[in-house]
Amino acid sequence: MEIQIREARETDCDAMMELVKELALYEKAPEQVTVNFDHFVQSGFGANPVWWAFVAEADGKVIAMALYYIRYSTWKGQRMYLEDILVTESMRGKGIGGMLMEALIKEGKAKQFTGMMWQVLDWNEPAIHFYKKYNARFDGEWLNAGIEF
Amino acid sequence: MEIQIREARETDCDAMMELVKELALYEKAPEQVTVNFDHFVQSGFGANPVWWAFVAEADGKVIAMALYYIRYSTWKGQRMYLEDILVTESMRGKGIGGMLMEALIKEGKAKQFTGMMWQVLDWNEPAIHFYKKYNARFDGEWLNAGIEF
Repeated sequence: MEIQIREARETDCDAMMELVKELALYEKAPEQVTVNFDHFVQSGFGANPVWWAFVAEADGKVIAMALYYIRYSTWKGQRMYLEDILVTESMRGKGIGGMLMEALIKEGKAKQFTGMMWQVLDWNEPAIHFYKKYNARFDGEWLNAGIEF
Repeated sequence: MEIQIREARETDCDAMMELVKELALYEKAPEQVTVNFDHFVQSGFGANPVWWAFVAEADGKVIAMALYYIRYSTWKGQRMYLEDILVTESMRGKGIGGMLMEALIKEGKAKQFTGMMWQVLDWNEPAIHFYKKYNARFDGEWLNAGIEF
């Protein structure tokens, strides 16, 4: 099977949202996905995009994705914030996550971002192991805080 | 003394970067501020802004700021990510941080963001106490991960 990594297109949005929902179901939190689909599409492909993504295609089907937005750090400038990197369950263990990471890093360097950051659950050992291959540093000293509007 | 909260303008960038550097010095990490000033200005006021900010002015001088960017959550849609909320040391304890929080929340609702998030160091009790006034929820289960390009 040939895996192709490419930039996401507007027509991928359906498949991408399916991947997001698959993960939410796996995490037993499907009701937490309250994003409006049209707003998702507009946010990626409208006049002022706020997210960018790569997808992995196998036999013409989107089976993985990596989505990022631009973080602005007042210390380091523009950085990539990797929001999601998802591989559909049946396609794991084939190196697709790594292919997506390589595409992200190549893009980040080309766009002159100063680095990439993301978050990982502190008990998610397989993910932490995966990220260590990229010499990621980890910092557990911060709390996420948030309010809903 | 009258405190005025308003949207940041391009001409505030010098004063804003001074506030950023004041904090970095306080945190004993001034060398960590490697952002390029022109790029900072362009990132806020160029053709494709990636940050937005409010400043607090006292006697015509910028003495506090709050800077955010747009986070895209595949679960919740567009949210504010509060990168920095800073009050110069001599002006603390006067409620200026609260005025900035109010301005952020008002803006976030007006722009139909679904919420606001930020991070706080887990030992920073005064900051955590301050954020609790806004009914913030806190989550310490995540590690920050990152790589430099």
